[in-house]
Amino acid sequence: MEILQSAAALQAQTEKWRREGQRIGLVPTMGALHDGHLRLVQAAAAENDVVVVSIFVNPTQFNNPDDFRLYPRLPEADAALLGPAGCTALFLPSVEEMYPEQSKLRFDFGSLEQVMEGAHRPGHFNGVATVVSKLFHLSRPHRAYFGQKDLQQVAIIRQLVADLSFDLELITFPTVREADGLAMSSRNRRLSVEARKKAPQLYKALQLGVRLLEENRPVASVKNEVLQFLAMEEAITLEYFEIADARTLQTVEELTQPQEVALCIAAWLAEVRLIDNLLISAKSL
Amino acid sequence: MEILQSAAALQAQTEKWRREGQRIGLVPTMGALHDGHLRLVQAAAAENDVVVVSIFVNPTQFNNPDDFRLYPRLPEADAALLGPAGCTALFLPSVEEMYPEQSKLRFDFGSLEQVMEGAHRPGHFNGVATVVSKLFHLSRPHRAYFGQKDLQQVAIIRQLVADLSFDLELITFPTVREADGLAMSSRNRRLSVEARKKAPQLYKALQLGVRLLEENRPVASVKNEVLQFLAMEEAITLEYFEIADARTLQTVEELTQPQEVALCIAAWLAEVRLIDNLLISAKSL
Repeated sequence: MEILQSAAALQAQTEKWRREGQRIGLVPTMGALHDGHLRLVQAAAAENDVVVVSIFVNPTQFNNPDDFRLYPRLPEADAALLGPAGCTALFLPSVEEMYPEQSKLRFDFGSLEQVMEGAHRPGHFNGVATVVSKLFHLSRPHRAYFGQKDLQQVAIIRQLVADLSFDLELITFPTVREADGLAMSSRNRRLSVEARKKAPQLYKALQLGVRLLEENRPVASVKNEVLQFLAMEEAITLEYFEIADARTLQTVEELTQPQEVALCIAAWLAEVRLIDNLLISAKSL
Repeated sequence: MEILQSAAALQAQTEKWRREGQRIGLVPTMGALHDGHLRLVQAAAAENDVVVVSIFVNPTQFNNPDDFRLYPRLPEADAALLGPAGCTALFLPSVEEMYPEQSKLRFDFGSLEQVMEGAHRPGHFNGVATVVSKLFHLSRPHRAYFGQKDLQQVAIIRQLVADLSFDLELITFPTVREADGLAMSSRNRRLSVEARKKAPQLYKALQLGVRLLEENRPVASVKNEVLQFLAMEEAITLEYFEIADARTLQTVEELTQPQEVALCIAAWLAEVRLIDNLLISAKSL
């Protein structure tokens, strides 16, 4: 596995691969890799000739300076995991390499970003769309891999690809969970022992929501029950719980068929913010 | 010269060219070609192995429905000019081909678009950046060619390329003029005989501004004289005349050295809106 630190070196490498007819898979990450990331890398290795994994804690997508400062950074440990998983080139740029000058351009995705993560993290999706566009232009992927845990991010990137006619295929993979149901996340490393014990309650809340919807309970009543369930847990401070159309991400008031619905949650455990989601298809109800 | 009408066909062609190691030049146009366009095509042919010219009257960059409706469309005449000029592939898509779905993404370029064309044509540069991004992704150019007549457009696209790390080189060419000084423009075809006679006054106004700046007259007084000169011409309704920093496009109050300055004008002749500009370097004063 090669490690590249400059944008020019990555562009030269991917240009060469394209010339040779190699199919390129890209897995953009912020590092502190877990099994969720590694499954994306393994899938990319199975479906492409070469795999670029980027590790870049992108400052422009953090609205909270503490979250940026405290985000786990473990490049050596990450590199040791990536080779065996099938990564061909690890792209590990500095902030100056990715942003030699301050960006002027800003993206707005309208209603797609006026809810959930976009509403609670101002500027987040502008930063995401900017860095992902850069990574697409540097890596020239045929396929790019993202985890479904970042559901709204996937929706934003899908819109970006469609609206700007990027010539690549987006591939998403289901959220990978710990044995107790907690969605894998790099931020889990920051949980105290106590908070780690409580964290699976987020998944349990989503499961409760799914079960109640499957019992054909009205959406408003499902929301209420889930909020009550979470309110019992003092260690958890809920930021939002939404039942939304999985495509438009807009809140749904009642389920119609056919419709895929996402149950989405964001909550704080002490100073660590976690998100999770579950998808259900209304036609399965 | 090949004529391609589908995005997929252009992507397949340019992918093949890239695989073969051919250097691709792109000249994006809205058609009704004049010598200004043809010089860009000739330059692209001289500097690249293959040349893609796109002709697409892009609805999303028109804020004025009449301007869109009345924009000259002459694809057959254009095609006849392009082969001899060195075009390899003419891309002639429909609106549905370029926009299979309505875009949700919007670009904002901040201060770069809060002046001149951006201020007078709301949404214009969002449309420009969107369609140019699409054309870049479909054409995969090594170099893209634009005319300096659209000075602010070039600044916006330069920012787009930098901020999203597009891997291509922007090349700009000086404005080509008629014998009487009128900047060549597809919209000149819409001028009445009477308006066509008056139109070179825009260039004369810019020249007057340059001359006065060269005489070290204060910027405010230069502006005043140019406005007075234009006010004498009843056929011309001025929209703006600006003396701006050529890089930031922000209005300058006085010239500092070294600084490149753009004198920019937009005006209506009856129902036709024309723009023009001249660049001067403050260090030459």
